[in-house]
Amino acid sequence: MFPPFWKQDSHYVTVEFSHEFNLEHEETITIACEGQFNLALDGKLQFGMPKTFVVPAGKHKLNLKVWNQATPPALFIEGETIHTDSTWLVTYEDKIWIDENGIAHGSGIYVPAASWNFDSIETPPSQYQLERSECRPACRYDIATNATLYDFGRETFGYLIIKNLQGTLHIYYGESREEALDKEHCETLDVLSCPLCRDIIATSKAFRFVYIEAEEGTTFDAVLMDYEYAPFDKERSGSFRCSDELLNNIWDTAAYTMDLTTREFFMDGIKRDRWTWSGDAIQSYLMNYYLRFDTECVKRTIRQLRGKDPVTAHINTIMDYTFYWFKSIHDYYLYTADLDFVREMWPRMVTLMEYVEGRLNDDGMAEGQSDDWIFVDWVDFPMHKRGTLCFEQILLMKAMETMAACAKLLGINKSDYRVKAEELRNKIKQTFWSYDRKAYYHAIEEGKMNQQITKFPNMFAILYGLAYEEERHEIMKSVMLNPSIAPITTPYMRFYELETFCIDGLQTQVLQEIRDYWGGMLHEGATSFWEKYNPEETGTQHLAMYGRPYGKSLCHAWGASPIYLIGKYYLGVQPTKPGYEEYLVKPVLGDLQWMEGNVPTPFGKIHVTMNRQEVSVYSDGGKGTLIIGEKAIEIPAKQEIKIGL
Amino acid sequence: MFPPFWKQDSHYVTVEFSHEFNLEHEETITIACEGQFNLALDGKLQFGMPKTFVVPAGKHKLNLKVWNQATPPALFIEGETIHTDSTWLVTYEDKIWIDENGIAHGSGIYVPAASWNFDSIETPPSQYQLERSECRPACRYDIATNATLYDFGRETFGYLIIKNLQGTLHIYYGESREEALDKEHCETLDVLSCPLCRDIIATSKAFRFVYIEAEEGTTFDAVLMDYEYAPFDKERSGSFRCSDELLNNIWDTAAYTMDLTTREFFMDGIKRDRWTWSGDAIQSYLMNYYLRFDTECVKRTIRQLRGKDPVTAHINTIMDYTFYWFKSIHDYYLYTADLDFVREMWPRMVTLMEYVEGRLNDDGMAEGQSDDWIFVDWVDFPMHKRGTLCFEQILLMKAMETMAACAKLLGINKSDYRVKAEELRNKIKQTFWSYDRKAYYHAIEEGKMNQQITKFPNMFAILYGLAYEEERHEIMKSVMLNPSIAPITTPYMRFYELETFCIDGLQTQVLQEIRDYWGGMLHEGATSFWEKYNPEETGTQHLAMYGRPYGKSLCHAWGASPIYLIGKYYLGVQPTKPGYEEYLVKPVLGDLQWMEGNVPTPFGKIHVTMNRQEVSVYSDGGKGTLIIGEKAIEIPAKQEIKIGL
Repeated sequence: MFPPFWKQDSHYVTVEFSHEFNLEHEETITIACEGQFNLALDGKLQFGMPKTFVVPAGKHKLNLKVWNQATPPALFIEGETIHTDSTWLVTYEDKIWIDENGIAHGSGIYVPAASWNFDSIETPPSQYQLERSECRPACRYDIATNATLYDFGRETFGYLIIKNLQGTLHIYYGESREEALDKEHCETLDVLSCPLCRDIIATSKAFRFVYIEAEEGTTFDAVLMDYEYAPFDKERSGSFRCSDELLNNIWDTAAYTMDLTTREFFMDGIKRDRWTWSGDAIQSYLMNYYLRFDTECVKRTIRQLRGKDPVTAHINTIMDYTFYWFKSIHDYYLYTADLDFVREMWPRMVTLMEYVEGRLNDDGMAEGQSDDWIFVDWVDFPMHKRGTLCFEQILLMKAMETMAACAKLLGINKSDYRVKAEELRNKIKQTFWSYDRKAYYHAIEEGKMNQQITKFPNMFAILYGLAYEEERHEIMKSVMLNPSIAPITTPYMRFYELETFCIDGLQTQVLQEIRDYWGGMLHEGATSFWEKYNPEETGTQHLAMYGRPYGKSLCHAWGASPIYLIGKYYLGVQPTKPGYEEYLVKPVLGDLQWMEGNVPTPFGKIHVTMNRQEVSVYSDGGKGTLIIGEKAIEIPAKQEIKIGL
Repeated sequence: MFPPFWKQDSHYVTVEFSHEFNLEHEETITIACEGQFNLALDGKLQFGMPKTFVVPAGKHKLNLKVWNQATPPALFIEGETIHTDSTWLVTYEDKIWIDENGIAHGSGIYVPAASWNFDSIETPPSQYQLERSECRPACRYDIATNATLYDFGRETFGYLIIKNLQGTLHIYYGESREEALDKEHCETLDVLSCPLCRDIIATSKAFRFVYIEAEEGTTFDAVLMDYEYAPFDKERSGSFRCSDELLNNIWDTAAYTMDLTTREFFMDGIKRDRWTWSGDAIQSYLMNYYLRFDTECVKRTIRQLRGKDPVTAHINTIMDYTFYWFKSIHDYYLYTADLDFVREMWPRMVTLMEYVEGRLNDDGMAEGQSDDWIFVDWVDFPMHKRGTLCFEQILLMKAMETMAACAKLLGINKSDYRVKAEELRNKIKQTFWSYDRKAYYHAIEEGKMNQQITKFPNMFAILYGLAYEEERHEIMKSVMLNPSIAPITTPYMRFYELETFCIDGLQTQVLQEIRDYWGGMLHEGATSFWEKYNPEETGTQHLAMYGRPYGKSLCHAWGASPIYLIGKYYLGVQPTKPGYEEYLVKPVLGDLQWMEGNVPTPFGKIHVTMNRQEVSVYSDGGKGTLIIGEKAIEIPAKQEIKIGL
């Protein structure tokens, strides 16, 4: 039981679903409900909670109020033409007043009802579970009398199962062998006890190793595990193969890391915290667009991070994480063209931005207040996080630009976010840019400039469009490629760092960085990618974090960035109009001999093959442009094109 | 299933309870929890969810995070000296940030944990139920073959029980005989069906009569009911007896009406809506101070009405009901001296008042917007409820005065509510008072004065301290006692009307009004008092409301106002300092020969006896002053005084 320590919102306990119909003939509907309900036909309350109901022919309205404290109120209705789907409206709050004659007036806040794949009476939303593949075995190693280490071969997630247990077992889990064997310091453990049980199933854990000590007289048979995962469509998924087996291994391990952390939501890590973190999540979304294209999980995570109004703290209490959240919505729109979701989120965007603006300092800049967490990154060098950080202002500028862009998409004219973003852009440049050092300084602290130069604000200046062509080259030279600037030691920020390299056309160098950094983790025995990796550390140093010997997560979503980098900057596929209505393919081999892979899209996938002689592209839809050097070649839908080099 | 149609807030799903201890020696505590929990000792997380735990000697801190989606997270800890009580703190939202070493910084919003009489491991809060007295029988009347009417003798609330049912019964409930027998229009009904059941228990209902039709071949034995009620301490309760048996009957029926509607919260009515309504509740509180002095139920209801932030609508969507809510908190403080509760409510008062002020019109007055319900009262004569109603401004003035008074109690200096209230007071007088008519006009509508005169603003001008001595007399004469002004036909507003009469010293006249009005209901067969009573109606007209033949509630809390009027204006007891630290007894016999009764107080009760010859008063505490004519006699605690007349 390790709940997050910030505000969590509960579901709306009573909601009302409604729909109007115009039926040619009467229709018998089946009603199933998670919760108690009442049913009104044309405003007249019906008796009880009927399992079936006859809706008469003609124009009629159904209203069902559903109450459920324990799980979200949910309704399933099935008739010949009537089905619960997102054409139904739902409100959690009517504002009604009743006149002397008992007639109700007024209106509520109506939104389309949430609807997913719960399309039968047997699949109520509250019973939703991820998929399981059952009974995976482990290798066993006897450590002492009644003490055995089980190795499931690689990082995994699921339910440990003990067969025919009679007695008591002490179970120590480890993402590493060292952790499982360290009974004092391992991060997760269990005690399973049973007079005699056929199957005893532990609560879900992340582990590769399990060390089991049996109390005297205890007997048991097999030790197995049920692997739990979010299902995906392999046919529609992203893929990558190339002439370099190490790189193939890295891509596969990154994909596996993503699959392990893609669950009900995009989690940060699977051992701990199993929470949604906005900064981690925005990377998961981007990787996901190049791997499984699971748009439902993106939407769920964005909604979940935001919660209900009122806003009383930054998302995850972290100021930077609030800013990323805004950008994630426009990213989602770019990849999916799903304007409905932007519309759904807009009121929440407005109130969150009001919260942000209410906390700006006198210069109109975002400065951490005493109860804000300023994260940026985990760093191994001294870096102040209080004061007015340039990094935070760049993220805020992007958040304001996102507000402006989404307002425009929704046809909202009165928004002045464009102006605010522009003002902030100018202010950042004037305040933090050093014409001497060709870099953005770190922060203003107590009225003075802290002239420390780190990669953080400088790379976001490139990525978020603050640094134009020439300035970008200057930053690359003076900061990003400058060995005297402190290196980044988390895959989290390496994601952004390597993206700037790719934007600068340094794909060959990035391939080598990927081989060194992610290959370095594989060399250390990683079977999924880590929360943090410092090549200068050795042995069990790699396992420690937060002052705990096994505090580090060895399966962390932000470790999987090669998925994104390879899809976007080697296969070279990216949308230029929402939902890939138009897109670019700008393939880059770097030092590879050949590569081929798929990028998923709303309409299917885009397949790219390239070797030293030719490029071929096939797309299931959209209007593509293949860029080869100076040449731009049109890619028609559903027709392979081959271009000699 | 008849849920209210406004915003309802759920509990906080994850909370953290904490306490610091300084133990002389180590202590083993028992832990029981509603929900899943984790336990940290001095910040270090402990394994699992232990049922017992040893807290070492010395200074230590316990933190328990409890998660529970279905019911409010609750914790029970019992040790030698350690007990969960309101000295524990609880937070639902930490604002924490974590540094590079895994150390948490920051702070949450901590409040004292709620704690009541759940003082054993066997009484978890989620299992709380009201008391029941079992198996009350009914008189039966055969209506037709297989159709029987059961009469439980008077209005009641609880669970119908059918013994040894084999078959199917159609059950029609009625607060009146007519309702139960009207299968088409009765407000509540059930179908009970069983192959063979020893006891079948229906969901709780309000009724006096039950009409049961058995399907062919159905057999059953006794029809009984379990009466459900909130327990109270009879010894400490208010009481009243006098020389007039009708008045005694009225007092008893009013007390029974209050007991039926005093439940988990103070309900409006027990047949429908069984909701909390702020305007109804403020009267229930006042009656309760003279009947059971159930302060927990007052606090629960005040909290429940308000809910969580943000405020998105008026309380119960009714603007007047928001204003009453404020006043109810100061009333509560006056009767109980419980400043902790005022402190608890203060943040909610502030945000609700912000909502109110955000909706004032250009003149700084409260005007119903299209989605506000302006209730005032159910009236049988034409009365516009749109525009700027004088009635609403007077309530708003009182709400602002309450803000000022509570700010002062809490030592909050920066509040400017006193000034705002004063400004509004002057504006109301200037705008609505007619020097010609000696009355407050009804409303401004579209810039023009609607010169209708109703009792509503005028009586609240008296009650809420807008009309001074002379003006009060003018209003009494020109409005309240003026037969050409439309009469009030709900007990709800008669509560206030008759209070103005009592303030004006018209106790003898009020006794006659009580005999006529409440006695009139008894004469019509009432066994509890009604939602609305118009003496001009006859027969089944008395049962209809909201356009439905049995829409009227025949057991409605606001029907019980004689409890309050008699306690405050005949026994004449009222606090003059919070919690009866000081109080007045100003007994008035009216036309009675004698009366005697108790008024409950925080320290016990005050007993008053009076006849034409003498008055005697005994009080368990406080410093009292007995007012007889011009004389003021001190009442010492715990010593009976007798004064000849």
